[in-house]
Amino acid sequence: MPSGHIVSAFEEELQFLSRRLAAMGGQAERLVEQAVAALVNGDPVLAQKVIRDDLLLDEAQREIDDKAISIIARRQPMARDLREIIGSIRITADLERVGDLGKNLAKRVNAVAEGRQPASLFRGLEALAELALAQLKEVLDVFASRSVERIGFVRDRDEEIDAMYTSLFRELLTYMMEDPRNITPCTHLLFCAKNIERIGDHATNIAETIYYMVTGDQMPPERPKEDKSHRVTLNRS
Amino acid sequence: MPSGHIVSAFEEELQFLSRRLAAMGGQAERLVEQAVAALVNGDPVLAQKVIRDDLLLDEAQREIDDKAISIIARRQPMARDLREIIGSIRITADLERVGDLGKNLAKRVNAVAEGRQPASLFRGLEALAELALAQLKEVLDVFASRSVERIGFVRDRDEEIDAMYTSLFRELLTYMMEDPRNITPCTHLLFCAKNIERIGDHATNIAETIYYMVTGDQMPPERPKEDKSHRVTLNRS
Repeated sequence: MPSGHIVSAFEEELQFLSRRLAAMGGQAERLVEQAVAALVNGDPVLAQKVIRDDLLLDEAQREIDDKAISIIARRQPMARDLREIIGSIRITADLERVGDLGKNLAKRVNAVAEGRQPASLFRGLEALAELALAQLKEVLDVFASRSVERIGFVRDRDEEIDAMYTSLFRELLTYMMEDPRNITPCTHLLFCAKNIERIGDHATNIAETIYYMVTGDQMPPERPKEDKSHRVTLNRS
Repeated sequence: MPSGHIVSAFEEELQFLSRRLAAMGGQAERLVEQAVAALVNGDPVLAQKVIRDDLLLDEAQREIDDKAISIIARRQPMARDLREIIGSIRITADLERVGDLGKNLAKRVNAVAEGRQPASLFRGLEALAELALAQLKEVLDVFASRSVERIGFVRDRDEEIDAMYTSLFRELLTYMMEDPRNITPCTHLLFCAKNIERIGDHATNIAETIYYMVTGDQMPPERPKEDKSHRVTLNRS
């Protein structure tokens, strides 16, 4: 913003919405980071913190929604301004869901800690989480800068996440077959991996919303929306 | 609508939105019904139909979103009218996601058909799907009638679905422990069960949106949002 420029009350309201959303994005990112750390380190105290912190994201969503709707009702925005506000409502819903997925990771900490899983599984999960978090961070940067030309990159990463998820899925199945005692904890790890993969999907949703906010168009629907794990079958020879 | 009443162009637009959304709800319901039938009968042809039909729900969402945003921009609605339109945007997102979840069920048909699972597992899945579909149907009825006093009933059913899902989760784990050949198909069935449970959650989201549309208030957040399966651990004695 050039100095000396007088910002109207309306612009201030839009900027408030944008800042609040960026802050919520940061909260969601930290929540997922901590959930993954709780899982990998088997840390029930951190898991409880994550579960509590998710309430803050629920609150943030309510606040952003209320503000967005009140701006529409009072200001009757058009075109790009209206898209900004509708986009905020969509993005806050995605971030709230990212928080739910992070909370669900935290809730599985005890069930996963039941058995001692090999470090390679946790490394796989961490690597998947790193990709998904990088995706989320990237998308939040695109949101801050509104530089939609970087959105293609986000989509490419989505494919990478799906491929890594599918390979982790296969690894977990193999491990379950090796010893029935692995079945329960690995099933929970499978759901954890799925949750992390879904976080990547929500980041991609947010990228699509930003594209719409800025351009007024829907992104072409070429995106491969799903992982390939539904095809994975392992038969014991 | 009493006969002789002159409906304004604006009201007609709102009614169009409402009808289009109700139609999309019916499509989502049928898609899930067929996905479950494809899964239970191991029917790959029906599964392919479901995967194709999901595109119709994606289209419906785009159409409803575009219409909703164009009404806001041109008509500058306030209060209840604005809530109707914002609510439509939310509901169409939930229905689109219900379609995705149904499509994901259909995509697992082949992997599940690899082994022959006991009929009881499929009965469990069917029973869960019946509850979730009843929930969705109920919510669409509430949407048509806007009779929010029936919403408490929807929430009660959500708890029932979660309890049934958790019991199916336990049953699937037991079955995987009995024979490693069951692990792959039962893992896919676990994800199917989770998808169906999520469909129930989306129905509950829709109920909350209708409550907001009609009353202008958020439903009190007492709802137990998650199943209890994250606690399930089975140790072999």
